[in-house]
Amino acid sequence: MAESRKLRMGMVGGGPGAFIGPVHRLAAEMDGKIQMVAGAFSQSPERSREAGVRFGIDPARAYASYQEMIASESKRSDGIDFVVITTPNHLHLPIALAALDAGIPVMSDKPATATYPEALSLQAAVAKSGLPYGLTHTYAGYAMVREARSMCAAGKLGKIRKVAVEYLQGWLSKPIEATGHKQAAWRSDPAQSGLGGAIGDIGTHAFHLLEYITGLQVTAINATLRTVVEGRRLDDDCNAFVRMSNGATGTLACSQVATGELNDPNIRIYGETGSLHWRQMDPNRLILKSLDGPEQIYHAATNYLGKDALAVVRTPAGHPEGYLEAFAVLYNEFADGLVAWKQGKADAFPATLPGIEAGVRGMRFIDRVIQSNRDESWIAF
Amino acid sequence: MAESRKLRMGMVGGGPGAFIGPVHRLAAEMDGKIQMVAGAFSQSPERSREAGVRFGIDPARAYASYQEMIASESKRSDGIDFVVITTPNHLHLPIALAALDAGIPVMSDKPATATYPEALSLQAAVAKSGLPYGLTHTYAGYAMVREARSMCAAGKLGKIRKVAVEYLQGWLSKPIEATGHKQAAWRSDPAQSGLGGAIGDIGTHAFHLLEYITGLQVTAINATLRTVVEGRRLDDDCNAFVRMSNGATGTLACSQVATGELNDPNIRIYGETGSLHWRQMDPNRLILKSLDGPEQIYHAATNYLGKDALAVVRTPAGHPEGYLEAFAVLYNEFADGLVAWKQGKADAFPATLPGIEAGVRGMRFIDRVIQSNRDESWIAF
Amino acid sequence: MAESRKLRMGMVGGGPGAFIGPVHRLAAEMDGKIQMVAGAFSQSPERSREAGVRFGIDPARAYASYQEMIASESKRSDGIDFVVITTPNHLHLPIALAALDAGIPVMSDKPATATYPEALSLQAAVAKSGLPYGLTHTYAGYAMVREARSMCAAGKLGKIRKVAVEYLQGWLSKPIEATGHKQAAWRSDPAQSGLGGAIGDIGTHAFHLLEYITGLQVTAINATLRTVVEGRRLDDDCNAFVRMSNGATGTLACSQVATGELNDPNIRIYGETGSLHWRQMDPNRLILKSLDGPEQIYHAATNYLGKDALAVVRTPAGHPEGYLEAFAVLYNEFADGLVAWKQGKADAFPATLPGIEAGVRGMRFIDRVIQSNRDESWIAF
Amino acid sequence: MAESRKLRMGMVGGGPGAFIGPVHRLAAEMDGKIQMVAGAFSQSPERSREAGVRFGIDPARAYASYQEMIASESKRSDGIDFVVITTPNHLHLPIALAALDAGIPVMSDKPATATYPEALSLQAAVAKSGLPYGLTHTYAGYAMVREARSMCAAGKLGKIRKVAVEYLQGWLSKPIEATGHKQAAWRSDPAQSGLGGAIGDIGTHAFHLLEYITGLQVTAINATLRTVVEGRRLDDDCNAFVRMSNGATGTLACSQVATGELNDPNIRIYGETGSLHWRQMDPNRLILKSLDGPEQIYHAATNYLGKDALAVVRTPAGHPEGYLEAFAVLYNEFADGLVAWKQGKADAFPATLPGIEAGVRGMRFIDRVIQSNRDESWIAF
Repeated sequence: MAESRKLRMGMVGGGPGAFIGPVHRLAAEMDGKIQMVAGAFSQSPERSREAGVRFGIDPARAYASYQEMIASESKRSDGIDFVVITTPNHLHLPIALAALDAGIPVMSDKPATATYPEALSLQAAVAKSGLPYGLTHTYAGYAMVREARSMCAAGKLGKIRKVAVEYLQGWLSKPIEATGHKQAAWRSDPAQSGLGGAIGDIGTHAFHLLEYITGLQVTAINATLRTVVEGRRLDDDCNAFVRMSNGATGTLACSQVATGELNDPNIRIYGETGSLHWRQMDPNRLILKSLDGPEQIYHAATNYLGKDALAVVRTPAGHPEGYLEAFAVLYNEFADGLVAWKQGKADAFPATLPGIEAGVRGMRFIDRVIQSNRDESWIAF
Repeated sequence: MAESRKLRMGMVGGGPGAFIGPVHRLAAEMDGKIQMVAGAFSQSPERSREAGVRFGIDPARAYASYQEMIASESKRSDGIDFVVITTPNHLHLPIALAALDAGIPVMSDKPATATYPEALSLQAAVAKSGLPYGLTHTYAGYAMVREARSMCAAGKLGKIRKVAVEYLQGWLSKPIEATGHKQAAWRSDPAQSGLGGAIGDIGTHAFHLLEYITGLQVTAINATLRTVVEGRRLDDDCNAFVRMSNGATGTLACSQVATGELNDPNIRIYGETGSLHWRQMDPNRLILKSLDGPEQIYHAATNYLGKDALAVVRTPAGHPEGYLEAFAVLYNEFADGLVAWKQGKADAFPATLPGIEAGVRGMRFIDRVIQSNRDESWIAF
Repeated sequence: MAESRKLRMGMVGGGPGAFIGPVHRLAAEMDGKIQMVAGAFSQSPERSREAGVRFGIDPARAYASYQEMIASESKRSDGIDFVVITTPNHLHLPIALAALDAGIPVMSDKPATATYPEALSLQAAVAKSGLPYGLTHTYAGYAMVREARSMCAAGKLGKIRKVAVEYLQGWLSKPIEATGHKQAAWRSDPAQSGLGGAIGDIGTHAFHLLEYITGLQVTAINATLRTVVEGRRLDDDCNAFVRMSNGATGTLACSQVATGELNDPNIRIYGETGSLHWRQMDPNRLILKSLDGPEQIYHAATNYLGKDALAVVRTPAGHPEGYLEAFAVLYNEFADGLVAWKQGKADAFPATLPGIEAGVRGMRFIDRVIQSNRDESWIAF
Repeated sequence: MAESRKLRMGMVGGGPGAFIGPVHRLAAEMDGKIQMVAGAFSQSPERSREAGVRFGIDPARAYASYQEMIASESKRSDGIDFVVITTPNHLHLPIALAALDAGIPVMSDKPATATYPEALSLQAAVAKSGLPYGLTHTYAGYAMVREARSMCAAGKLGKIRKVAVEYLQGWLSKPIEATGHKQAAWRSDPAQSGLGGAIGDIGTHAFHLLEYITGLQVTAINATLRTVVEGRRLDDDCNAFVRMSNGATGTLACSQVATGELNDPNIRIYGETGSLHWRQMDPNRLILKSLDGPEQIYHAATNYLGKDALAVVRTPAGHPEGYLEAFAVLYNEFADGLVAWKQGKADAFPATLPGIEAGVRGMRFIDRVIQSNRDESWIAF
């Protein structure tokens, strides 16, 4: 970085029992460009303070609310450079708006908001503010996802004809939200999660991965939603047909009742002359199958990869990188972008970093899935 | 076998350039219970004779037509015990009817007929004749498919909630039927193949595998059909949603334009407490994932398998069996059944051997898929 | 085949409780070129007869001893064309000599004999007789082993530098020979098995695979033998260093106490520019890794394989072949060779079919391993 | 941590072109307990300063030599809490001694020193100083290695009988040290690397993994060393037999000319009733095979793992952790230990963190391998 100091991050969310908050902290700080210096970690002031101690930040900067954090930090000469939002979905919009309103850039967990109209509001607010906004679609940070994206863009598969993307988990196979499981509880509560259950929590990742890798857009969807576990208040299983902007078709599936699956985003892209296969649980390999030759396994960090993939690896080939590193890739791009943006550079943020457009697409996905499921029919995107 | 002689088989189809005919011969004879002694291998008398020589059968029994074979063999004291049908689909019905009419049992390649009404006719004819009829849904012959079926029946997964079955190939990614590829030519010709392209050729296998393993029936389907390769006259790609008789839902996909895939039938069954995963290209392993314990890989021929699986293995664990052995399992069951049936035994044929009911189900599947695709909606099964 | 009849096979061994006898029968007959018509299946005349009935052969040709079989069959106009030996090792030599003496070609299970001196005697007898002799090193029959052999011969790996071959099983992890397990009993009895336990039973396969694929010879070995299970009378575990004729070095390991392993012959060959990896339990894939490009998986029966591999496949790519098919490949080559040999053709038997030279190499391997282990040192081969 | 500040780390090595230095920095800081505040990154003062800027540390603390760093930092009230050594091997001892002499704890890359006598000196110095010393045998930080260690300790495999450990790389298949490749150059230079080439660089890891997981010690070794690439000055390939303290035997192999292998430490442990299988390139899975039941795959971060494994995971099951996380686990244990040690707690450092004893074992391994290879015989350990 041109400037010698680390960027200062303020987190909203991430208090006791949180999963994704600590992941954000670790990922943000991994490459030494960002330091978390403030936070409103919980809606309970006391818990927020405790979390701050645990994270090792100045107690004075462990705030009782995001409003307080934004107000206080805005006044400090060493105030935060950006806010990261790691709360349940229903708070994404108000926090983002508050930050933007205070002139503070935003990095947000997905989905961007709780509803599609909210996403449009946020898009407008981002545009109006002229401020950076990043969205942590983690899987976009994997080197082999970048390689797949490059291969598609380079026409390595020929014209894309057929796609199949899945995100399967099994951890909600039982109604654990009824027994006090915090992660399960907010995700299955419409008031906190929004209208999407599994489709919001993980379906948006699958959807993003599909558009991100292929470089195509979904133009229509025909989706079936189910709530498999009795008494659950949101969907926990979805199968959908999709049509892509180039005429390709395929399927998108997500489930949190796929018993025995741990965390299995995976994608297959079939073109005229070849196909790509990637699984998050084996993230450092990308399989390329072709019509006429042997199946090929591309390994991360090898010298035969394209520059986009090689730009985001930290260790030599054969030294596996994982989920946290993928997450950190996004923070890295955000950090570099932020520095460049502060210096007034145009195009400070690379196209590889998901932003508000991806956020709006994801929320439209949830909206369209729900509508398609209700109407039992195809719906334009 | 109680009687010391081998059963005598007469084949229709299997002449020069055929793929499945030689496979039937090899599979039928593998376990020493059946011998192919006659055939009408081609619609060209000369080619039929040549094939007979190549197969090493008596030239006098290499017939010019199936009609001739049935007529001649019926008169011999050492005539054939059954006919096997390995022709393109449009001939399945007339050949089967001719054999049944002559009192000869039938073993048939799938799909049972070229159309659903034909299948109903055949079902009636089989019932009227009282003769045995077997259908070679090859994948039902794999030991680990049997194990999966047993596990489902035993409730090892809890209530089944979600299914995903696929059959993917890539060999029709280019219009090779236009360049004289015999296998591709008849499969993409409605006059020979019937109304189904990929759905008839391989979709029926996927459908059968799904019902066979789960013990459930598909009760409704919502399917999309595509002809991806320009100029092709039948579908080459299908994605479908399915509803099962116990309320489970899921997907069925088949494609012959999944570039780079060789021959990949695969299935996943998710229940309340566990899930099963099987791939034909790795046929001797069955994966069981559960909510609370390590993933388990069951290997063929191990002593911890159930009796149905162990009944059909020929080699010790670790000595892989393959496609031909799976095929031979069906012939084995058919041969044992035929002997028992000749001896007047009730229930001569085990439930594990697909018969005319499976054939009717498969043809109904094709019919419903086409209708659902046309109407762009769910259709009851 | 030019002649229209099947070759007639007479088996020695293969009676009740046998594993490998039925495998030989099935493999021999798989491709329709051979028929088992006679046998001396057990040293008990009654059991031999029973086995004959079960195999469906003429009761008159189920003999009480191999001597009787050879004597009787020699006199018949439709006598056997060759003998196959599937007994415990100590009988391999006398049976082979008796057959050769009677002018009958021999196909033998491995190892060729019980001791190295015996192998030299047999080699002399074969040479003197001028009769065909084949050895069923099963793994040499796999298409992808043939492909690996072709790749090495073609220099696809550059100069070979390093090798690692293993054959691991776990079924003798407990002293099951003490509890009446027939297969375990003779294998661990020096009087029946010869001086080698695991090294004779499976080590010879590993050794053969190594020389067969690389086209190199082992020139020196440094081996450690162990008898891990207390009370066992022969070795059940071996690790060895090897030096190859081109200067390459590496390791050979075999074990029957590798708990949890089923039947795992596997080999890796490292050259200057690439390496090959093959596992018998995944036999239809061959992995090629290179210094500078993606890992490649070659699949059986694809059109990019060499002619030697394609010559031995029966089913299209993606339709797995297994252990029995590999076995049958050897019988196929033996059958074709026998027909050609009867017609006086030179070079009737291809180099791909293991014969007496491989048999002598294998027995020398056992001999050298035992000596090296005793002396705790390298020994020339 | 009880105290609210981060531990301060000073690095020696890690300048331009270094691989392992940046890895140490990232791993050390990953969990927010350590901050690199000083360094002597290069023997060139200018380069050291540049590296300091790149790492974002105070320019005044980017020293021209480790001596300078130790001297200066010792005087600061906010001086470093420990030194980490990431230089070529020949500098490990002098740096460690200088640090210990100044009362500063040490974390060192492996191998501990350049020679075995040096290791003994260091051991004495550590003992005399009473200061903490940690050794970064990275692979010991993987959760599934911890699980394997726990399973062995708990007797889950029965008595261990047979072991096989490998560490294979292919990156030195060509003499790249001759063309200016910095990593290759020092590793193949005896003056910098010590007497071991591949055995020092990666063989020590394999050796450590073996003793670490099994809880056994190697008591004798019989090793063959080779320099495969012409002109190379140290070994690049090693195969060895080992005897373990409980009577088990097995093999250890390492190579940097295993063309096509990326970074493949892997281990198999066979006991009386089961076996364990782990590969670093698939680090989040541990395979347990048993005599009588299905193969089992244990996944990282699942609730069925033991406490030692669960103690070191950061992300939920299915969210892969990799090499950097494993590395960070060691720093985490070192950091916690250092805090506890400063507070005067006994047993501040857990047995799971490799220390000077592991360092001495590793150097003895190199020494014994070289001697065994020279004498072509077994040598006691």
